[in-house]
Amino acid sequence: EMAASEGVANPMKMLRNFDYGTVKQENGRTIREFELTAGTSVIQLNSAVSYNIWDLNGSIPGPTLRAKQGDRVRVLFLNEAGHSHSLHFHGVHPAEMDGVRPVKNGNATIYEFDAEPYGVHLYHCHISPVTRHIAKGLYGMFIVDPPTPRPPADEIVLIMAGYDVNDDSRNEYYAFNGLPHHFIDNPIRIYQNQLIRLYVLNIIEYDPAVTFHLHANFFDVYRSGMTMTPSEKTDVITMGVAERHILEFAFRYPGKYMFHPHQDAIAENGCMGQFEVVAA
Amino acid sequence: EMAASEGVANPMKMLRNFDYGTVKQENGRTIREFELTAGTSVIQLNSAVSYNIWDLNGSIPGPTLRAKQGDRVRVLFLNEAGHSHSLHFHGVHPAEMDGVRPVKNGNATIYEFDAEPYGVHLYHCHISPVTRHIAKGLYGMFIVDPPTPRPPADEIVLIMAGYDVNDDSRNEYYAFNGLPHHFIDNPIRIYQNQLIRLYVLNIIEYDPAVTFHLHANFFDVYRSGMTMTPSEKTDVITMGVAERHILEFAFRYPGKYMFHPHQDAIAENGCMGQFEVVAA
Amino acid sequence: EMAASEGVANPMKMLRNFDYGTVKQENGRTIREFELTAGTSVIQLNSAVSYNIWDLNGSIPGPTLRAKQGDRVRVLFLNEAGHSHSLHFHGVHPAEMDGVRPVKNGNATIYEFDAEPYGVHLYHCHISPVTRHIAKGLYGMFIVDPPTPRPPADEIVLIMAGYDVNDDSRNEYYAFNGLPHHFIDNPIRIYQNQLIRLYVLNIIEYDPAVTFHLHANFFDVYRSGMTMTPSEKTDVITMGVAERHILEFAFRYPGKYMFHPHQDAIAENGCMGQFEVVAA
Ligand SMILES: [Cu+2]
Ligand SMILES: [Cu+2]
Ligand SMILES: [Cu+2]
Ligand SMILES: [Cu+2]
Ligand SMILES: [Cu+2]
Ligand SMILES: [Cu+2]
Ligand code: NA
Ligand code: NA
Ligand code: NA
Ligand code: NA
Ligand code: NA
Ligand code: NA
Ligand SMILES: [Zn+2]
Ligand SMILES: [Zn+2]
Ligand SMILES: [Zn+2]
Ligand SMILES: [Zn+2]
Ligand SMILES: [Zn+2]
Ligand SMILES: [Zn+2]
Ligand SMILES: [Zn+2]
Ligand SMILES: [Zn+2]
Ligand SMILES: [Zn+2]
Repeated sequence: EMAASEGVANPMKMLRNFDYGTVKQENGRTIREFELTAGTSVIQLNSAVSYNIWDLNGSIPGPTLRAKQGDRVRVLFLNEAGHSHSLHFHGVHPAEMDGVRPVKNGNATIYEFDAEPYGVHLYHCHISPVTRHIAKGLYGMFIVDPPTPRPPADEIVLIMAGYDVNDDSRNEYYAFNGLPHHFIDNPIRIYQNQLIRLYVLNIIEYDPAVTFHLHANFFDVYRSGMTMTPSEKTDVITMGVAERHILEFAFRYPGKYMFHPHQDAIAENGCMGQFEVVAA
Repeated sequence: EMAASEGVANPMKMLRNFDYGTVKQENGRTIREFELTAGTSVIQLNSAVSYNIWDLNGSIPGPTLRAKQGDRVRVLFLNEAGHSHSLHFHGVHPAEMDGVRPVKNGNATIYEFDAEPYGVHLYHCHISPVTRHIAKGLYGMFIVDPPTPRPPADEIVLIMAGYDVNDDSRNEYYAFNGLPHHFIDNPIRIYQNQLIRLYVLNIIEYDPAVTFHLHANFFDVYRSGMTMTPSEKTDVITMGVAERHILEFAFRYPGKYMFHPHQDAIAENGCMGQFEVVAA
Repeated sequence: EMAASEGVANPMKMLRNFDYGTVKQENGRTIREFELTAGTSVIQLNSAVSYNIWDLNGSIPGPTLRAKQGDRVRVLFLNEAGHSHSLHFHGVHPAEMDGVRPVKNGNATIYEFDAEPYGVHLYHCHISPVTRHIAKGLYGMFIVDPPTPRPPADEIVLIMAGYDVNDDSRNEYYAFNGLPHHFIDNPIRIYQNQLIRLYVLNIIEYDPAVTFHLHANFFDVYRSGMTMTPSEKTDVITMGVAERHILEFAFRYPGKYMFHPHQDAIAENGCMGQFEVVAA
């Protein structure tokens, strides 16, 4: 792809970058604390097209937060993004922590809740129009690990999103982890015979359903990451908006293998990538 | 929302209103008999927009019929809706009972079949163009209870539908149980810690897939209500046209919690609601 | 339907026609060899509309290839279709066999891999734009049988595809097994009480999700054919692009029963059919 900003979007780094927050002790209880600051930025989607976004901690998508089931999670949200925003978490929490009330520009708020039950979740702004607030960058993945850890694996995050740059309620560009075409130009290196655990989120608005297809392999599906037992094995999974799953697979043979929605309009406009499988 | 007719649409009443029909004995066998009359009506979608519909027993959606597995079901269908119509049930029955043959205006017919197997089903007109005949009101839910009853719960019906008021094959409005925005303005009161059993049907035409999302909670999914075992736990389920499921959950904390398709165009145009969780 | 070519499309024959290839012995190992030749042809979608296609072995869709888990499969691909093409198989194989590299017009190549694991898979051209190359005919089903055979059944193949005849990225016509409306005009005869095993593939491009609905019955779903255990029972299954499943059912009563996407635009434009259930 043409020259694109690697500052606000770093798709490769995002793959395996988990923010575990800071663990604190308060009055005999353990808190896992995260800081999320919303700001404004510009992303270069290609050499011709730039797009104003709202970043979280300087990046799009926002950071992948990670906790363990039962953790008391605290999110310090500071809004420096020019408009009112909020952070709504998918998870179990009281109404006061639901993150649908606006936080004015310049203000901060604290979201606090127990990370329970385990699963692959997400967070995003919930100010109307929500679609716009999500698409302009205010979203990220939130992983809650089960009490018994999953087997060792190369854990990788892939978030599918779209860019509606001309506000016509259609996406002109699509991306894995923020930048169109990035993983075609920069394949994801993984080891042969290594168990891969993919945390996949579909946050593409406007398109009612998006398929995720992996070449030359099949994956076990752990729906919403809320189970220790796979529900199916397949190579195409159809995902509605805000669906997210754990997909597990290993590649038997070295080489390059594409992954992409089995939909040209989405794949050809940026939601396409490759794994590069190398001998261990 | 602005003044809307509560006569032909009563979304709140529809939530927990099950038509069990009339049980009769005939020649030593038990029949569960229902009467469905199709008529014409006008619905006020908001103060500016009215829409001609075909009602069933004076309402849109049609009544939620309910039987027990193994019942002999008889539906007396009287068509007073001005055009030929029919009633096609999702279920097991002979071809003569499939409800694809037109019943002329002013005429009546009897559909009779065994309610088996159990599940959450639906019925709708099957006269071409079926999309139009469904969308103008000739549809409803049909619940067949399993032989061993499900555990006690607050059982609630939510039907997602769309309104294409200008005949351009797109929906301008969407609704839970017939009226756009109704459950945002009139939250559904439920008890804290109470098991909720949601019977959800997606009968929105034109939109290929619709997500159902519940804030601050997760639900167990019993697919098509045709199983006693949940297939997954999640907070977003993607539903194609005519998909319907049982979703079970309980709220731990009091307060208001939104539910809606995770798609702005659908939610913002009327398919949005709230649960109001109150202490028992 | 109006006069349509039965040469390049033979939907009825395709229902139960499985190409098991030729079994050869080479150096002490068993090879199952298939020949696929891509050519050009014209299909009559109706008396008014013809459409240029790329056929495989003279037909659209391409032949249903069938092997047993563990077979060494060899596909001799000869491209006589005027442009560069390829054949990409869904399955496990090394990168060299992934079928994403173009085979020039007039050239041939050999794809070879182990048919493993079992399932209902597919193959298609993977030359950009892939959507176009698939839709113009270069696709087919690829079944790999499990080591323990499935119970005896009437096994039937149904492939849903679309035709974008004016290149506007929308389908004007839809079809089961290549010809719009074919199985409405020519119902599929099956026996009463006979177990039917349907291999269904959705390869409709542009439409993000397509439902498959069967009248008057319910089917057990074996997802991607990659399991011996059904995951659900239903009468409506929503399928994204390249999803394919085994659906099993039996009809209790004789008569005609429709099957179709529960979406008018798709059904009314050709993706509609009937089973004709006859007493044994
Ligand atoms: Cu593939
Ligand atoms: Cu591909
Ligand atoms: Cu939410
Ligand atoms: Cu919401
Ligand atoms: Cu039906
Ligand atoms: Cu039908
Ligand atoms: Na746009
Ligand atoms: Na556009
Ligand atoms: Na409309
Ligand atoms: Na419109
Ligand atoms: Na077209
Ligand atoms: Na067109
Ligand atoms: Zn590019
Ligand atoms: Zn915002
Ligand atoms: Zn959300
Ligand atoms: Zn309103
Ligand atoms: Zn009608
Ligand atoms: Zn139906
Ligand atoms: Zn026709
Ligand atoms: Zn091709
Ligand atoms: Zn494919």
